[in-house]
Amino acid sequence: MRCTIVGATGYAAIELIRLIELHPQLEIVSLISDSKTDEKIERLYSFMNKNQYPVLTEFSMAHIKEVETDLLFLATPSGISTEYLKQLTEWDGKTIDLSGDLRLEKTLYEAWYAHDAIDSSIQAQATYGLTEWKREDIKNSRLVANPGCYATAILLGLLPLLEQQMIDPNQIIIHASSGLSGAGKTLTEQTHHVRSNENVRMYKQNRHQHIPEVESVVEEITGQKVVVSLATYLVPLNRGIMATMTLQPLVEKTEHEWQAWFSERYQQESFIRINQADPEIRSAAGSNYCDLSVYLDTRTGRLTVVSVLDNMQKGAAGQAIQNANVMSGYDETLGLTQQPFFI
Amino acid sequence: MRCTIVGATGYAAIELIRLIELHPQLEIVSLISDSKTDEKIERLYSFMNKNQYPVLTEFSMAHIKEVETDLLFLATPSGISTEYLKQLTEWDGKTIDLSGDLRLEKTLYEAWYAHDAIDSSIQAQATYGLTEWKREDIKNSRLVANPGCYATAILLGLLPLLEQQMIDPNQIIIHASSGLSGAGKTLTEQTHHVRSNENVRMYKQNRHQHIPEVESVVEEITGQKVVVSLATYLVPLNRGIMATMTLQPLVEKTEHEWQAWFSERYQQESFIRINQADPEIRSAAGSNYCDLSVYLDTRTGRLTVVSVLDNMQKGAAGQAIQNANVMSGYDETLGLTQQPFFI
Amino acid sequence: MRCTIVGATGYAAIELIRLIELHPQLEIVSLISDSKTDEKIERLYSFMNKNQYPVLTEFSMAHIKEVETDLLFLATPSGISTEYLKQLTEWDGKTIDLSGDLRLEKTLYEAWYAHDAIDSSIQAQATYGLTEWKREDIKNSRLVANPGCYATAILLGLLPLLEQQMIDPNQIIIHASSGLSGAGKTLTEQTHHVRSNENVRMYKQNRHQHIPEVESVVEEITGQKVVVSLATYLVPLNRGIMATMTLQPLVEKTEHEWQAWFSERYQQESFIRINQADPEIRSAAGSNYCDLSVYLDTRTGRLTVVSVLDNMQKGAAGQAIQNANVMSGYDETLGLTQQPFFI
Amino acid sequence: MRCTIVGATGYAAIELIRLIELHPQLEIVSLISDSKTDEKIERLYSFMNKNQYPVLTEFSMAHIKEVETDLLFLATPSGISTEYLKQLTEWDGKTIDLSGDLRLEKTLYEAWYAHDAIDSSIQAQATYGLTEWKREDIKNSRLVANPGCYATAILLGLLPLLEQQMIDPNQIIIHASSGLSGAGKTLTEQTHHVRSNENVRMYKQNRHQHIPEVESVVEEITGQKVVVSLATYLVPLNRGIMATMTLQPLVEKTEHEWQAWFSERYQQESFIRINQADPEIRSAAGSNYCDLSVYLDTRTGRLTVVSVLDNMQKGAAGQAIQNANVMSGYDETLGLTQQPFFI
Repeated sequence: MRCTIVGATGYAAIELIRLIELHPQLEIVSLISDSKTDEKIERLYSFMNKNQYPVLTEFSMAHIKEVETDLLFLATPSGISTEYLKQLTEWDGKTIDLSGDLRLEKTLYEAWYAHDAIDSSIQAQATYGLTEWKREDIKNSRLVANPGCYATAILLGLLPLLEQQMIDPNQIIIHASSGLSGAGKTLTEQTHHVRSNENVRMYKQNRHQHIPEVESVVEEITGQKVVVSLATYLVPLNRGIMATMTLQPLVEKTEHEWQAWFSERYQQESFIRINQADPEIRSAAGSNYCDLSVYLDTRTGRLTVVSVLDNMQKGAAGQAIQNANVMSGYDETLGLTQQPFFI
Repeated sequence: MRCTIVGATGYAAIELIRLIELHPQLEIVSLISDSKTDEKIERLYSFMNKNQYPVLTEFSMAHIKEVETDLLFLATPSGISTEYLKQLTEWDGKTIDLSGDLRLEKTLYEAWYAHDAIDSSIQAQATYGLTEWKREDIKNSRLVANPGCYATAILLGLLPLLEQQMIDPNQIIIHASSGLSGAGKTLTEQTHHVRSNENVRMYKQNRHQHIPEVESVVEEITGQKVVVSLATYLVPLNRGIMATMTLQPLVEKTEHEWQAWFSERYQQESFIRINQADPEIRSAAGSNYCDLSVYLDTRTGRLTVVSVLDNMQKGAAGQAIQNANVMSGYDETLGLTQQPFFI
Repeated sequence: MRCTIVGATGYAAIELIRLIELHPQLEIVSLISDSKTDEKIERLYSFMNKNQYPVLTEFSMAHIKEVETDLLFLATPSGISTEYLKQLTEWDGKTIDLSGDLRLEKTLYEAWYAHDAIDSSIQAQATYGLTEWKREDIKNSRLVANPGCYATAILLGLLPLLEQQMIDPNQIIIHASSGLSGAGKTLTEQTHHVRSNENVRMYKQNRHQHIPEVESVVEEITGQKVVVSLATYLVPLNRGIMATMTLQPLVEKTEHEWQAWFSERYQQESFIRINQADPEIRSAAGSNYCDLSVYLDTRTGRLTVVSVLDNMQKGAAGQAIQNANVMSGYDETLGLTQQPFFI
Repeated sequence: MRCTIVGATGYAAIELIRLIELHPQLEIVSLISDSKTDEKIERLYSFMNKNQYPVLTEFSMAHIKEVETDLLFLATPSGISTEYLKQLTEWDGKTIDLSGDLRLEKTLYEAWYAHDAIDSSIQAQATYGLTEWKREDIKNSRLVANPGCYATAILLGLLPLLEQQMIDPNQIIIHASSGLSGAGKTLTEQTHHVRSNENVRMYKQNRHQHIPEVESVVEEITGQKVVVSLATYLVPLNRGIMATMTLQPLVEKTEHEWQAWFSERYQQESFIRINQADPEIRSAAGSNYCDLSVYLDTRTGRLTVVSVLDNMQKGAAGQAIQNANVMSGYDETLGLTQQPFFI
């Protein structure tokens, strides 16, 4: 498959490039950057300087066709993806959008993002790319809305429970911490090392755009309406998310039974692991795994599900490659077998 | 006041020494360490090597009296403090115990700690040293149970609400992150830099010994029985705690009214600040402040209180000095006016 | 002494404010910021929000006089300090400039900095504020050029040896690492957490402006001409500098004799400590100490002097307060007795 | 090739396992750990728990043969490797030893390591595995001494210059910083997060065992006797080394000519890159690259070569795989094409 990446200098794009290097069936034929046109990505990022990549190019449909793109990754910010998606409506290749622009219907989008939504007709064509839960739809889709990083971590933990109506849909309280790469490449006071280092910072309390993403995907997949509380934090590390869901179970099971129940539900999945030890970001960082831990508190009766993943891989570029594999009929794990860093 | 510190090589002791250096009325007359007897603390910690400290000495009541100790800090681990406290029953000086040994009544203590509790008669004499809420008792006390780090952060946020019955006592869900100094000086796989760095790790889920501490102090002070959920995490930094309490309010107020209500409640307090911006550990680390932020989510109706403090200062040594000031009749802020590090 | 700080929102100013809070004789009467005029510093930095500081004000000589400033700190960048210094020529108060603008004579300054030098007549009036070596001059000075952070660390190690002609002045090879606060508050790709974290980066190789500062101060104080090699690195931490000087001794002494020789040379100094253990940044960070370690390699005959200090304290604001104490006739350690953080 | 790893729970072994996962021709048939016999590595390291690895087994020659090992990696500490190597003398498979036990001849080894050397007859059979400089010997070797991490970084920079007698062999001054994984998995005060974080620490000054390794390999390969000064530091990050060599050139070239000269020397090498920008650890961490930067200081006449690599990859497990590829007749880059992490 001949791949083009739009927004080629951002973090998600860089991770896509790293992953495609290791993928036996994907090949980069063009790197698009409207701001760095004609520069070489090997110059911008010295870590790449033994490779030969296409020179950064301006976006145009003529170019996309000329390089014979089969698969287009939009690694562009929300709002910007919309501009490209409008031009791609007539194109017959496959597109995976890593931004939030295709994830929410118009009213919700405009309430939670600070700008206009894409045309509802375009958004309606997109499949939500949570691979484990939408695999069949993705297989036949030409347009995939790649999920948000927090949303992926949260949904993989919640969906089994909500699908089987095992928890109270109105008692879902989530706390989620992300490494600094989640804040993007933009220079801000909060991402200056001296400020972010030796710090934890809560942000977007009650206002994070992954709240409506979680709620609407739950409703789409399980038919259940939920209202979630989500607190989000930046923690001083580069990669990784840990999301803790505190829940009210509606059925009685022991902690061990809950763990076994999750194991059974996901036993066919290559990238989901049920973890019996204390969860930690390091167990998944550097890989496409999502690790789930399950606790039952006999004092309070509450069930806690902890979900850990690498926000750059399973939470962004890794899941995009996983979706590309599904859309292309490849083995879903192709190019994604890197183990977590550990060190 | 002539001060002796027992357990003088641990983190809490080192922070006590740093703070007493800046205190105009406290003086260190003895440093006790049963494991490092006859060594000099300036040798063990090069950062101290321009100062003149007493040589590390073995504990004995004769020694405590010989050096004319007025004020004894037990900076020893839970279980160990008990051994010293037993010997101190006849002594007429003032004691502040930084361990958990005096914080819980016998049954609770033995259920949550892995060893025998101290005699109930000794525990009954101790005043819980949450200065802002027990000031009058501390003033007249000879034995203070200095609060736990998480417990301090949580209680300062919860007590105003529970005292006025403003929240549902059965809907208290807490997530709290601590820097690595919270894990103590003991060498473990989890505190090895390569493991803890670039990591977040959940630990003691549903089993943290500050759960019963919070619950019993709430009951003692407000008369309300509460059952709390507490998730605790280690985050890759040295100092600081952020605790987020997700709550169900029983009265109607706007977010702004809740903030104003907290400001009014604590307006006389030197070390409690109500913060309107995104909370961050850095706002308090290096100081004795506890910073509180208050959010109301109009979608879910939930109230969120975020509490930030330095686990070595307001969460340990700083509050111990604050209590020493109260017990000695000094201005409560004496020696505690250092501003947060920021850089 | 009534103090005014110009450039009040930068790192050096923030550290000055923290230190002045703990100083019994200094008081802040004005905070000057031409970019943030009329804002409150407590709003810009939440960590300060229990204090009452003067509102940020525009610079004018009328204002400086109106608030009855005794002592003016210029915590402004090189090039900007010059603008203020020009206006201060007629003023009869004391000024300490933390920038590089007064440290070099015109030709050198213009060769190493990227802009015009201040009038030579103004520069000639300034005393170089390396307190331990210029104490008597500082006492009688109204204008002090506060030394650079690397220059302070390096000079305190080199000067005793060069003064006594104990090393080859042409064989001085220096490697020095600094925490990120050394790169200043400006937002750059290199200070974005995701880039600087888990990284070491060499910068300004052979071009660092502290090279001519070291060389000209050595010549001024010892009469020796030296040419030094200096490699500088950013390391992923907030505060602290470690500078290693690899040297060719001209006299024979054992390692132990060299250590004793340094101890004797500096034994009267409150802020200089000779350290026998492996040097580490943590031994000085958070304090005004400069810690020196001395090694002799019997294989190569080379002498190694390692100098550690906190770039925000002894390397900037701390030394400025030390100089203010000297200029004001106070005990030199006043307000500077904080111990290193350790934790 | 059927691979067995001895010392399977250490850092080097874990990195070998990660790399072998991505290698199309290598397969793990046994994991040896004398201390954790019968445990499962997936239990010890949760990050591995979706894989199926052989249960940890005790070492015996019978076992090595029974599992039909083609290639044995000794990822054991210095001193311990010797014990295994003694038993392997009769075995006809290939062995790569990642410890220092085969790198130095007996007298040097015993002077710099704290214990007995291996039999000189065994050491004499080993080829030093600096792939780029010993490729032909490695091809025909059954026993490879995999180079030390610092030694690799330093030698790749020095050897071209010394081979051509372009620098003074007595003026080689090296400063090298390593991430904490370089200190190994053993729990020590210096690797406790609270101590190593926000710190830089010099260690083994003039005593590092890679000093004689560099000197004897230079002599073996170039015939030149050199005496080097090496200062080593731990910096607060997990992976990566930066080594700076300050040198006295014997020929005249401009900085640009030196860079071109290095580029030409290494142009055939897949893993060596000549970098024109400021060197940084991040350019190589996570990959098998060694990045070299070259500076000429026209003031001092000194040449500076900076070498950056990942101590776990090119400095240990990566180079071991590279050597395994050479020994096995595979393409040298097989399984080693991962790009640096960058994020």
